[in-house]
Amino acid sequence: MSFAKLDELGRKLEALEHALAILGADEATHMAVGGGAKRAEAMSALAGMHHRQATAPEIADWIAAAEREVLNEEQKAALGEFRRHYTNLTCLPAEFVERLMAARLRSEQLWRDLRAKNDWAGFEPALEGVVALIREEAALRSEALGLDPYDALMEQFDPGHRTADITPVFSDLKAFLKDFVPEALAVQEERRARKPLRPLSGVYAVERQRELALAMMAAAGFDLTRGSLSVSHHPFCGGVPTDVRITTRYKTSDFLSALMGVLHETGHAMYEQNLPQAWSHWPLGKARGMSVHESQSLFVEKQLGRNPAFWRWALPLVEQHLGESWSLDEILPHVHRVERGLIRVDADEVTYPLHVILRYELEQELIAGSLAVSDLPEAWDAKMREYLGLSTIDNPADGPMQDVHWPGAAFGYFPSYTLGAMMAAQQWAAIVKAHPAIDEEIARGHFETVNDWRRKNIWSQASRWSTPELLERATGEKLNAAHFTEHLKKRYGR
Amino acid sequence: MSFAKLDELGRKLEALEHALAILGADEATHMAVGGGAKRAEAMSALAGMHHRQATAPEIADWIAAAEREVLNEEQKAALGEFRRHYTNLTCLPAEFVERLMAARLRSEQLWRDLRAKNDWAGFEPALEGVVALIREEAALRSEALGLDPYDALMEQFDPGHRTADITPVFSDLKAFLKDFVPEALAVQEERRARKPLRPLSGVYAVERQRELALAMMAAAGFDLTRGSLSVSHHPFCGGVPTDVRITTRYKTSDFLSALMGVLHETGHAMYEQNLPQAWSHWPLGKARGMSVHESQSLFVEKQLGRNPAFWRWALPLVEQHLGESWSLDEILPHVHRVERGLIRVDADEVTYPLHVILRYELEQELIAGSLAVSDLPEAWDAKMREYLGLSTIDNPADGPMQDVHWPGAAFGYFPSYTLGAMMAAQQWAAIVKAHPAIDEEIARGHFETVNDWRRKNIWSQASRWSTPELLERATGEKLNAAHFTEHLKKRYGR
Repeated sequence: MSFAKLDELGRKLEALEHALAILGADEATHMAVGGGAKRAEAMSALAGMHHRQATAPEIADWIAAAEREVLNEEQKAALGEFRRHYTNLTCLPAEFVERLMAARLRSEQLWRDLRAKNDWAGFEPALEGVVALIREEAALRSEALGLDPYDALMEQFDPGHRTADITPVFSDLKAFLKDFVPEALAVQEERRARKPLRPLSGVYAVERQRELALAMMAAAGFDLTRGSLSVSHHPFCGGVPTDVRITTRYKTSDFLSALMGVLHETGHAMYEQNLPQAWSHWPLGKARGMSVHESQSLFVEKQLGRNPAFWRWALPLVEQHLGESWSLDEILPHVHRVERGLIRVDADEVTYPLHVILRYELEQELIAGSLAVSDLPEAWDAKMREYLGLSTIDNPADGPMQDVHWPGAAFGYFPSYTLGAMMAAQQWAAIVKAHPAIDEEIARGHFETVNDWRRKNIWSQASRWSTPELLERATGEKLNAAHFTEHLKKRYGR
Repeated sequence: MSFAKLDELGRKLEALEHALAILGADEATHMAVGGGAKRAEAMSALAGMHHRQATAPEIADWIAAAEREVLNEEQKAALGEFRRHYTNLTCLPAEFVERLMAARLRSEQLWRDLRAKNDWAGFEPALEGVVALIREEAALRSEALGLDPYDALMEQFDPGHRTADITPVFSDLKAFLKDFVPEALAVQEERRARKPLRPLSGVYAVERQRELALAMMAAAGFDLTRGSLSVSHHPFCGGVPTDVRITTRYKTSDFLSALMGVLHETGHAMYEQNLPQAWSHWPLGKARGMSVHESQSLFVEKQLGRNPAFWRWALPLVEQHLGESWSLDEILPHVHRVERGLIRVDADEVTYPLHVILRYELEQELIAGSLAVSDLPEAWDAKMREYLGLSTIDNPADGPMQDVHWPGAAFGYFPSYTLGAMMAAQQWAAIVKAHPAIDEEIARGHFETVNDWRRKNIWSQASRWSTPELLERATGEKLNAAHFTEHLKKRYGR
């Protein structure tokens, strides 16, 4: 039976994915520094084995044969998602994948070196090479999938997302934020004039921060028997659903930095921990995509973790672990800080979408060929000045060179961040509608209602639906900006 | 070119071995408790991939073809060792391997349960099943390798070791120990009568013990940029040569327990760290076998780590880290303690060989069929009474049920422990002969001379020679008991 062959293949692939996931997490947390070269060699060989096995030509025959077999509804869904996944994986010729990989590695290495030197001129040719290949990739994917080129790129990260749907939503959001960012900044200034910011004391021992983070993770619903918290230079969520590895980095000067990061990764982790285990070795059983994943991390970090109700519950916990007493009025200005800045990863939830929309607009033009890489610094600067009133023209390191995505050949990925933020707000709104008193539960540290809703509507659905379908089934509405803008108005507006 | 094919295969196998080694070490140190089932599934699938690739029938053709290619001396050695390894790996039919694996897993599980209950009668049939299969395995290996059945089993663990060579050496050792164990115990008693044992204070913080262990590891030559020390329930040395994972477990009541364990694992680790990197993906580049590996761990733990000169250097370090001052006279009775006991893993270096020789004699009889499993408790008890004056007849859990080896189908392995102890003493004697003042260096914490000798004679040789050849080339002598018995007399005799 061909369905059984796919099932068996899935188990082999899952074993290799397990190894790659744990080796990857281990590399950033526990590996000896001298182990890097051999680790890279081993992971590259394992990734090669995975790719060869996952893209073997006979799989196409197995899928076709399985489609003629008698299957139940769930198996049919698994098979459909397997086909979608296989098509996305095999629509590029091996020769092209190798060329792209080589160009990507070169440009990433160059970027690491030249970003530090703020050297755009040196980096430009490498990025031009990558963009030329990405245009080729977009065309190949477009032909295989019958989608517009940019949509075909997004499809890798968020199945079902189309520019035709997203652009209007982003336009609404952009129009709103143009006026709202100044308003939020003004409100913040007025509040600070009335009540100056209480500074953090700056003596937060790492071990105490860690205990606080673990207590919050556990309360939020992270299963500590199937995951752990470690330290790494860049925080991440890795590992496997039965052993999710999240990391943070601690500053003794600021306990909120690690804590909010841990809440973010806890959101990713809980999605992984609650995926349907029976399908863990099929694409059907995996997390839906980048924007849904980001919606889960932002849900915990922003919708829960920066909610005043959450802090009513959390402040006694902070006092218990750190020995420092904070009032709600004192802590909220820290967790609701708004600031115009150049760097996306440092941005708050009000200004963040403008960083993403800027990249979304520019990368579409790059793919379409209406923008040349050589014109990128000016184009970036113009938008940055328009959206956030800041210039990057003399500072490409903090302009078009700031992210690893483009040097790393990841185009079509950026929208996921803001789509995730909007989807998180839309999910929260659906929960509030069904449970109007939910803030009272949060304020008591009860997350069951929220997590039951998420388990039923998001986690257990895994890759059963396309991203827009999943959101609509969960919230009863298509993706829209209104819930997110309402959320921002309520938290940051007058 | 067929040699190149084998080289490429070696790199793939090395990647899978890397994954298995790190996943294995991770399981015992950092894995979330709930991750066990999926980890086992993944490791079993990866081990299956490794076995299929390592035993593929076409490899026999590649080896044969490569033997007709123009190769340099080192390549010829690599090819010879590859053939030896492949023959050992493929001399059992797949059907038999599966039967053995199933019987082994069943008997191991049963053993875990029934040893705790001291239930020999319940366990006996399972062990009988394993022994029947091991007799079959020995016959199959014997035929493929042209060796006596028990030699063919040992060949898996220590290439070149033969009962014809080992039995006389073990006989010498046994004859010596029969008189020497009572002597060492009497000497110990006399010394204690003159000067009572100073008890350990029992307030050794784990973090301080760890810092002390790391300082000693580094001084002894462990490369901390290519390895690390963690905690696990059972101490081990795992990982890969560029990232060796050693572990210990700490008792706050006794700093010597963890420390001596760390020194033992440091010996294993330094062997791995100093293997020739260029051949790391060929059998030629791997550690020679179990007894050589054990000779390296026992060299560091016993020849160095229990040497009075070592403690002249180490005591100030102990004081620095643990804040406790010990004189040489006070510490040596702790590190030179001798005791007759039932349990092999708890035995000291004087009594340990008798535990091994007992097993070596009994397992040969089991394989030959001259001893039935049902007669094992009586046979064990008789030897135990003869060698150590202790009875296990009412206590099979501490008799023939005490080790995992036999339930785990590992026959021919036990001799490695004592062969390793003798080889370590023989290596130490060769170093002393070449460097008569070596104790002075040790007392100053200088391990370079010792490590240079070991690097040149043992580590860099990897699997270039059979075990007996390696020892003879290194020390200028065949394996013999004299250096070990001299060592024991000097340390424990009158």
